[in-house]
Amino acid sequence: MGKDYFSERVSIRNYSDKEVSQDLIKHIIERAMRAPTCGNMQLYSVIVTRDAEMKKRLVPLHFNQPAAAGASVILTVCADFNRFSRWCRLSGAKPGYDNFHSFIMAMTDAVIFSQQIVTIAETEGLGTCYLGTVNYTAREISELLGLPDMVVPVVSVSIGYPAGEEQRCERLPVDAVMHVESYRNDSDNDIMQLFRIKDEDDTNKIFVSENNKSSLAEVFTDIRYPESVNLQVSESFLELLRKKGFLRDN
Amino acid sequence: MGKDYFSERVSIRNYSDKEVSQDLIKHIIERAMRAPTCGNMQLYSVIVTRDAEMKKRLVPLHFNQPAAAGASVILTVCADFNRFSRWCRLSGAKPGYDNFHSFIMAMTDAVIFSQQIVTIAETEGLGTCYLGTVNYTAREISELLGLPDMVVPVVSVSIGYPAGEEQRCERLPVDAVMHVESYRNDSDNDIMQLFRIKDEDDTNKIFVSENNKSSLAEVFTDIRYPESVNLQVSESFLELLRKKGFLRDN
Repeated sequence: MGKDYFSERVSIRNYSDKEVSQDLIKHIIERAMRAPTCGNMQLYSVIVTRDAEMKKRLVPLHFNQPAAAGASVILTVCADFNRFSRWCRLSGAKPGYDNFHSFIMAMTDAVIFSQQIVTIAETEGLGTCYLGTVNYTAREISELLGLPDMVVPVVSVSIGYPAGEEQRCERLPVDAVMHVESYRNDSDNDIMQLFRIKDEDDTNKIFVSENNKSSLAEVFTDIRYPESVNLQVSESFLELLRKKGFLRDN
Repeated sequence: MGKDYFSERVSIRNYSDKEVSQDLIKHIIERAMRAPTCGNMQLYSVIVTRDAEMKKRLVPLHFNQPAAAGASVILTVCADFNRFSRWCRLSGAKPGYDNFHSFIMAMTDAVIFSQQIVTIAETEGLGTCYLGTVNYTAREISELLGLPDMVVPVVSVSIGYPAGEEQRCERLPVDAVMHVESYRNDSDNDIMQLFRIKDEDDTNKIFVSENNKSSLAEVFTDIRYPESVNLQVSESFLELLRKKGFLRDN
């Protein structure tokens, strides 16, 4: 089969100055709301950041990365059981969603919805980039955006018109990811073969030598996603879930 | 703007007997692997269930719902830090991903990837349905599929050729979900207005009277997603995260 959008898409980190109109953003969000959702509960909300003053405060929470700083809008997508629980109470029902499972349901809903936004935006000719930094500063982002109880930011996506071409990075072969009937226990040699495309990639080799590391894996474990930071973020994110009411009994 | 796939799509719960070929499934998965992924780590795996014997064991774990029982294949998508951590170790690096933050990263990756699979499958003319039951029986599914440490099922999707038309259910108005610059604190009256489309929906009204409830919200809180079950699933899912090595210090 030939080339198609799905095989060719890339995330965009450099945007032109052109604004993405609020009408277009709203139209994208509205269509994305037809994405699958748990029990048709739509357990998500999205906050649109476009105002210059708000951006000045939000972008540092995304570590000032160009994909955030240069974007026309930043969307913060939240797992949201606030709206649904309020409706339950106002309808005389007793909501029981202040627990971990309910958070997982709402997070799943929010991420499905986010990816639908990304796909629709990209097929409209826009560029998008997920900002993984949302997990690191979820508490500060919650405060800045005025998120109430039962609302937790889980995804940030920047959107803008692309400024030029972006390079397509390598991916694992499909056999690394796809298992038939049960999880395949790859041998050590299999694993190294599957990751060869990464280890032998020229751009990756430059990362390794620039960082004075002896393997690409060390760039990840020692610099990009080190254990000390992961443990810190684990604690602060669990603390946020507790504070927002999603871990009542756990 | 006119009708398009995104505005018109629906989940499919009734499938024809026609098989979805393994080649097509593989082609869908391969294209979905161009979906955005955290740091290009691709922290997901997918197990394809097609074999009749395996289906006989998996379908009950999805409570025998027709969307599972009648599907040509069921995909179980997992948050997977096993493959990446093994590669780190084999490369002489020390992975530090046995924590909650790493699970959240991998889960985000897995759900983005799942939604990409769904969109590609649907644009190929297939029907799909998320099976929320995966969260309820994640431990049993893990055992059945032989999932190792650092691999946790987070999404199940059934895929098949649609048998006839599916009804499109109502959604909230876009203003319920979209917030501008900060989270809008809706009044009680606003909330009830936003949910009116649900409360006044004819199909929903039938649910309410069939279940002898006094409001649609009670169908959710008392029958579909009751607190007692949510608390039970919270505990069993956290236990699974612990067992699989994602909650070392929490």
